[in-house]
This record gives sequence, C-alpha cells and structure tokens, in this order.
Amino acid sequence: MAFEFEILATDGNARAGILHTPHGAIPTPVYAPVGTQATVKALSPRDLQELQTTLVLANTYHLHLRPGEELIQQFNGLHHFMGWHGPILTDSGGFQVFSLTEINQIDDEGVTFQSHIDGSKKRLTPEISIQIQEALGADIIMCFDQCPPPRDRDIVQKALERTHKWAVRCQEAHPDNTVQALFGIIQGGIFQDLRAKSAEFLCGLDFPGYAIGGLAVGESKQEQYRALDYTLPLMPTDKPRYLMGVGDPDDLAEAITRGVDIFDCVTPTRIARHGAALTSDGRLHLKNAAYRSESIPLEEGCTCYCCQHFSRAYVRHLAITRELLGHYLLSMHNVHFIIQHVQQMRQAILGGTLRDYTDSFLRRYLQRD
Amino acid sequence: MAFEFEILATDGNARAGILHTPHGAIPTPVYAPVGTQATVKALSPRDLQELQTTLVLANTYHLHLRPGEELIQQFNGLHHFMGWHGPILTDSGGFQVFSLTEINQIDDEGVTFQSHIDGSKKRLTPEISIQIQEALGADIIMCFDQCPPPRDRDIVQKALERTHKWAVRCQEAHPDNTVQALFGIIQGGIFQDLRAKSAEFLCGLDFPGYAIGGLAVGESKQEQYRALDYTLPLMPTDKPRYLMGVGDPDDLAEAITRGVDIFDCVTPTRIARHGAALTSDGRLHLKNAAYRSESIPLEEGCTCYCCQHFSRAYVRHLAITRELLGHYLLSMHNVHFIIQHVQQMRQAILGGTLRDYTDSFLRRYLQRD
Repeated sequence: MAFEFEILATDGNARAGILHTPHGAIPTPVYAPVGTQATVKALSPRDLQELQTTLVLANTYHLHLRPGEELIQQFNGLHHFMGWHGPILTDSGGFQVFSLTEINQIDDEGVTFQSHIDGSKKRLTPEISIQIQEALGADIIMCFDQCPPPRDRDIVQKALERTHKWAVRCQEAHPDNTVQALFGIIQGGIFQDLRAKSAEFLCGLDFPGYAIGGLAVGESKQEQYRALDYTLPLMPTDKPRYLMGVGDPDDLAEAITRGVDIFDCVTPTRIARHGAALTSDGRLHLKNAAYRSESIPLEEGCTCYCCQHFSRAYVRHLAITRELLGHYLLSMHNVHFIIQHVQQMRQAILGGTLRDYTDSFLRRYLQRD
Repeated sequence: MAFEFEILATDGNARAGILHTPHGAIPTPVYAPVGTQATVKALSPRDLQELQTTLVLANTYHLHLRPGEELIQQFNGLHHFMGWHGPILTDSGGFQVFSLTEINQIDDEGVTFQSHIDGSKKRLTPEISIQIQEALGADIIMCFDQCPPPRDRDIVQKALERTHKWAVRCQEAHPDNTVQALFGIIQGGIFQDLRAKSAEFLCGLDFPGYAIGGLAVGESKQEQYRALDYTLPLMPTDKPRYLMGVGDPDDLAEAITRGVDIFDCVTPTRIARHGAALTSDGRLHLKNAAYRSESIPLEEGCTCYCCQHFSRAYVRHLAITRELLGHYLLSMHNVHFIIQHVQQMRQAILGGTLRDYTDSFLRRYLQRD
C-alpha cells in the first residue's frame, strides 16, 4: 500500500522506519536534498543515486514561475521531467511567497504577490497550491501555510489561524491520498501553547503525515530544540514527522533523537557553493589559506567521490578560482556527509545505540572538549 | 618508447595514428578538452573518462598565477593534483600573456606583464615558461611564443623572429624529450611566405612534434583553411601535428582532412555555459523559446548521459534558470559530440572513407541543401 509507514524500531523517542511511496520505499529517518528548480544544485540524478538519496524536495513556488506546472505536467510530472525516478516531496510555495516576494495582498482567501523574477502579479491560494502540486506529481505534497517570523506572538497567532483554515481547504481540494500524500504543517513559532493548539487542530484532520514548519527561520538552536520538545509528543506516533528546512548535522542529531523522521535543507549544497565542507570536526572553510597545501581529503576515511580522489589543496584551488567542479565536488561531499550521518543514526536506532552515537558525534562536531 | 608516433593509415593527406606518452596512448586525430585551471570546466576526471577523453590541455599562465607551479610540483605534478591520470598537454603561457594581460614590456628577452587577477607584476621568458611547464609535469609541453593578430604583416613578422629565437632557447632549456616532449610552434599569421619561413626554421630544430599557432584568432575560416593548405605540406609527416585553439566541428573536418593530428578548443565547454548545444544539424541555442516543450534529446541517437536521460525542454529549463546542472549536461554533450566526431573521422581514415564522411557531415552541419 502506498504511503504505509512502518516503524521498525525505536530508541527512546527516536524511530527507524520505512515510508512506502509510489516511487519507492524511503528508509527513515531521511534527509532530502533540495532540488529547488527541479535539480539539486550541481548534482545529476545519477549522482543522487550514488549518494543513496531516497527523497528529493522540489519547490512549488519556483517551478510555478519557471517552467510552469503545465509544462511539467505535459512531461508526465516532475519525476520524468527531471529524470529522478525516486520519491519526491514538494512544498506548498507558502514559504517562498512570504520570504522572497513583494506581497501585494494577503487575506484569508490567499496571497497576491509579485514574482521575484519579473515582477509579474501572481496569486496563490490553498486550492491553487494543491492544483500546482498535483500537476507536478510529487509523492508527498504539503498544505499551503503562512510561515511568519517565529517570535512575534500576534503575527504568529494570526498566521496560525489562517494556516488552519487553509489546511482544511487543502484537504478538501485533495481528499484522496493514494497517489500523492498531503501532509499538514504545524505552526506556532516558539510559543508552546500555540504549537499545542496547532498540533491538536491539525491532528484532528487526520493527514497521512505531519510537518513542523516555522523553525529554522531565525530562532536560536535552543529555541528550536525546545519547540521540538513540546511539539513532537503531541504528534501521532504512527505517522511520519517532517521537520521542514532543518539539516545542520547537530540539529539532525537533536531532532532525530526527539523523534523526527524526515528532513530537508539547502545548507549542504549552499555552503558547497561558498567553498565550505562538512566534516566530523565541524565546517571547513576551504578558502582559508590553512588548507593551501593539505594533501589529505576533506574528511579522512570518507568514501565519497571527492574524498576518494582529491586533496583539500585541490578542492581549495577550485573554490578560490570559482570553478564549477569545486561546486560539484563540495556538493557531493556535503550531501554524502549528511546522508551518511542520518543513515548511521538509523543504524544506531536499530541497534539501540543512538545515545552513544549522538553524544560522540556532537562532542566531536561541536568541538566540545 | 615514450612519444613514439605511429601512423596506422592515411587517407589523402589525413592520418590515423597513435601517439605514445608516459601516461598512455593517444589515438589520433584527437581532440583535447581544455582544463584551463586544472579542471575542464564543469567536468570531473571520471566524466572525462566516460567521454573517452585521451588528452587534456591545461594553461600554464593560469596555473602559474593560481595555485602556482610550486604547489602543483609538491603534489607530484598536474596529473596527481587534478586527478587526471591520462596524457596532459600544457601551453606555454604566451597566448594568455598577450591576450589577457596588460603588458608592461616586451623585448627579445621575454615579457613583463600584470596579472589579470590582482595586477601584480610578473615575468615570463622562454626559460621561465619551460621551468613552469617542467614543474607542472605535462606529457607534452610547448615552446614560449608570441601569437599576434594574424593580418598585420609587420607585427606578424617581428613576432615570428622573436618566436624563433625563443624556440631555440626553449629547446636549450629542455633538451631531453624522454619524459616531456617539447613541441615547436609555427607562426606566420595568414602570410604564406612567413608560414614557410617559420616551418623551415622550426623543423630544422627537430622537435618531437609541431604545432600551428596563430590561427583561430580572428581570421576567416577560408583564411584558416588556406593557411593549413600551405603550412601542412611543409611539416614532417612522421611527427604529430597540432592545430592550436581550433575545435569547431566543421574546422575539425577541414583540418583533419588536411593532415592535422591534435586539437584543443574551449568552444564545446564555453558554449555549454551559454546554453548552446552542438548537433549534427548545427548549434542549438536552447534559450530559444522554440525548444520550450521539446521532448526529444539534444541530438537524437546520441549516447551521452544528457541525451540518454533528458529532454531539450529540461535542458532549456536549466539553461534559462542558470542551474549548474545545465552547464554540466551541455558540457557533457558537447565534448561527447566533438570526441565522437573526431573518432568517426579516425575510423573513416582507417576505412578509407574520410571524404564520404566529411562531405556528408559538412553538408548536414552547415545546412548546405
């Protein structure tokens, strides 16, 4: 059955499972690289396969603007258009509308905004977002929501009420979850009572999965972890839980420990383009002269294509000269690092040793001596 | 024996051969992708292998400025530094010094110029160019030459005399061709008598291979072909002949027919980054709206990774959105196209059918109906 979610083992609040989708099974916890414009930046589908990617995120807002969902539908959906035949998740467009565009009007009905590309007037509503996501054809689609800055209670509360009404309308627009599963998004910023209210309301709608939205948008790491502490226990244990936009290695450890199953984050590919590498000892900023003549790989013992063939000195040279191969090699390494990290946590959950793994990982990664 | 050049077959003036080097055999004619800064733009060494690349060019001028030949020497040379273990050719730096920099002083001794990166004062002489190229460790290295605009006779003549003196000094600086073969460069612009003079002078020095320089720098195609017509017969038949900077598909056909063995050219990778694809029917400019919804590959029947998996519409989307994957896929396709084209000419020479192949290729490529 599509979208069956099996939990194979738990370790404390953490869970190791399998989420079945029409395009394949996703072992959870899982990190999804972000393919904003129907491509994970610098990586091809065969690279994603080599990296053992099992879920890719694409952005409804960007694809709506270019090339437009009609064209992608004409190509039988995103999987065929972008040549990625594994599971795909699309967001609703809400986050980008509120963060990238000049808003002309926001009301309970929807949002009118100007395209960040050509300034043209566009409109998104819950119904339009669902319609676009149905045309794109991702396996997992998301409710249209309003994601406000997390600390202003009045704004967060208003956005929450609107998001709840929009969730009902999204569900009405997409009642059948057999081909595409529609996930609800819990908002509420950093406010415990609002998170509780949102979790209660949305869980009452019985979505096939739930996301925690409105984090990784400016709060501190401690605020983020606290929000997880009081939100996750209010979410159903038998459904997948998706923490949107989170993917720093330490945050993944904290969130998986607390019971999150799905993640997406642009950080690994974005910092690659700025010349930074993720390693067990923290981030390496390769433009730093310290790496100029280092013959070791980015991470010793790493099995990615970059670390198997190239020195830090060479990758630094590519970063300094802004060569495309530098973006590629660092993207390969960083996505590999995150996927391996999440896979190791999954193995640790299955083996009942998650605490040991995360303690040891965090001590080294955060350089806590 | 390293650098033995075997000619397996001829067809008219065209030759099919094998050039042996310390890093492997190069079937000729051969096209070398350009790895300016120790990377062929957007492509990894394993991509180059998949494309059946057998020779890569790198630029002495760029590598001298960044990261510097001392660092590359510390890594046991370019092959190890860039992870490309097949044959490599470096140019002398002359072309870039004269085309990219602000010259402070040029005299018979050498050139003082300002780095195009940071304006710092640098100097190249024949001896310094050889020293840098020895540190880089390419299989084939080139004499330091002056490459002037091809049509001003006075300038061309002066540059020629200087180039000849520099060739003698390069040879004195690099007398032993067992590990790195030093090729001489025939100059002379579009002037038949100057080309003859240059060919005669340089061939008297008995280099292990000869290049024709000073073409593909502003002359018309007809002028280029005529220069080949009167220069090639003056070059030894038993040594490899390298036409520098030429690589348009039609120019390759014309030059191979006339007896050239080695080519390099940035065009396939450069036009890729501008959204253009090479096909048997000419160049496709993918940003053109005509390709917006085309589901066929860039070239039907093409076996490259791009054409096997992606539509013109998708590649166009990547070009329009300036995605790195677009640069990658178009670079893969364009280099594949050129290498296949040259391989097919080699097969045709071996089979005695070169005329048929080039006639039919040029008719279609140049849309001569």
